[in-house]
Amino acid sequence: MKFVLDTSIFVNPEIRGRFGKSPSEAMREFLRYAEKLFGKVEFYMPPGIYREVMHFVDDESLRPHIELYIVKKPPNVHEIKIPAFVVYELIDDIRRRTDKGLRVAESAVRESVIETDNVDKIIQKLRRNYRKALREGIVDSKEDFELILLAMELDATIVSADVGILTWAQKMGIKWVDASTFRDVLEGLVEKLTGSDPSKRSQVE
Amino acid sequence: MKFVLDTSIFVNPEIRGRFGKSPSEAMREFLRYAEKLFGKVEFYMPPGIYREVMHFVDDESLRPHIELYIVKKPPNVHEIKIPAFVVYELIDDIRRRTDKGLRVAESAVRESVIETDNVDKIIQKLRRNYRKALREGIVDSKEDFELILLAMELDATIVSADVGILTWAQKMGIKWVDASTFRDVLEGLVEKLTGSDPSKRSQVE
Repeated sequence: MKFVLDTSIFVNPEIRGRFGKSPSEAMREFLRYAEKLFGKVEFYMPPGIYREVMHFVDDESLRPHIELYIVKKPPNVHEIKIPAFVVYELIDDIRRRTDKGLRVAESAVRESVIETDNVDKIIQKLRRNYRKALREGIVDSKEDFELILLAMELDATIVSADVGILTWAQKMGIKWVDASTFRDVLEGLVEKLTGSDPSKRSQVE
Repeated sequence: MKFVLDTSIFVNPEIRGRFGKSPSEAMREFLRYAEKLFGKVEFYMPPGIYREVMHFVDDESLRPHIELYIVKKPPNVHEIKIPAFVVYELIDDIRRRTDKGLRVAESAVRESVIETDNVDKIIQKLRRNYRKALREGIVDSKEDFELILLAMELDATIVSADVGILTWAQKMGIKWVDASTFRDVLEGLVEKLTGSDPSKRSQVE
């Protein structure tokens, strides 16, 4: 059994809360499960996602366990192939978003002519709306795309809370678990797959 | 031998000039070549491109010849697969373009606060620069992508003058001819492939 892990599990505050108060605490808690499932369940991260997560997890004592229980692997982008209709829909989606981005920009310009004193506020709003138009709910980074490709390659389950990633996973026939339910899944797997003594001490401190 | 034809051959004024003064004249001239090459060379258009071209070619007398000499065929988007690295690069390219689009929008807002009388001019400039940032040199429409997919499927040669299309064709190992040289190619093919009597009368009037 294989899982490919997204940053949201450890970084997104709403999701992370299920595991711990900080990214480091969430990672520590996750590693306790990974330790128990060692040899039975494999956890992967592509390099871009790993870098992002490690940017937030700043506890040196966790490093050896992370290296042991999370396999770092890039997808083989020169071997994997994507169904054309997925790319077709992506191009169409981006085109519509691009058009919307221009409308957002135009209305910001028109607004700023009237409210010349509020330029900073208008720019903030522009950034918010532009981001919403162009980036929300779409796979918009190499890091996200690597996650999908790695899951394809390994026939693994994606664990993410990102709408864009989950949408693509579903289009491409990839198994997925919503990150918000991941702790329950791990709990269940430990129960089903291991006969481990709950009093046995973890090495992840 | 198979060619997949882009709109630029008949619509783009610089390219079209090699065939005729108007889209209809260019089409008529192209069809004279297609007639001579009938049975030896096949010419294809995906549906989106065909619709675009027919929007400009408004000569009813050409219709039967177009139907005979240009095969309309959509690509089979559910069978064809795209190498992952091409999509990977596309996603990265779009991300950089999206960021640039926001910078273009922000500078338009800052400009409009200073020059409140020139809002129309600023919006025109915004549109120009935004288009340049987001759309130039990229496959940004379903129509363009269909062209690439159809050429892949048929192992045909793409004929286009669009930088985005030609760039993708090259990444994906697709044969291509720059539309600006297409007339010379046709001329050469007629010479090489047919022993046709040059005095023989064409049915394309």
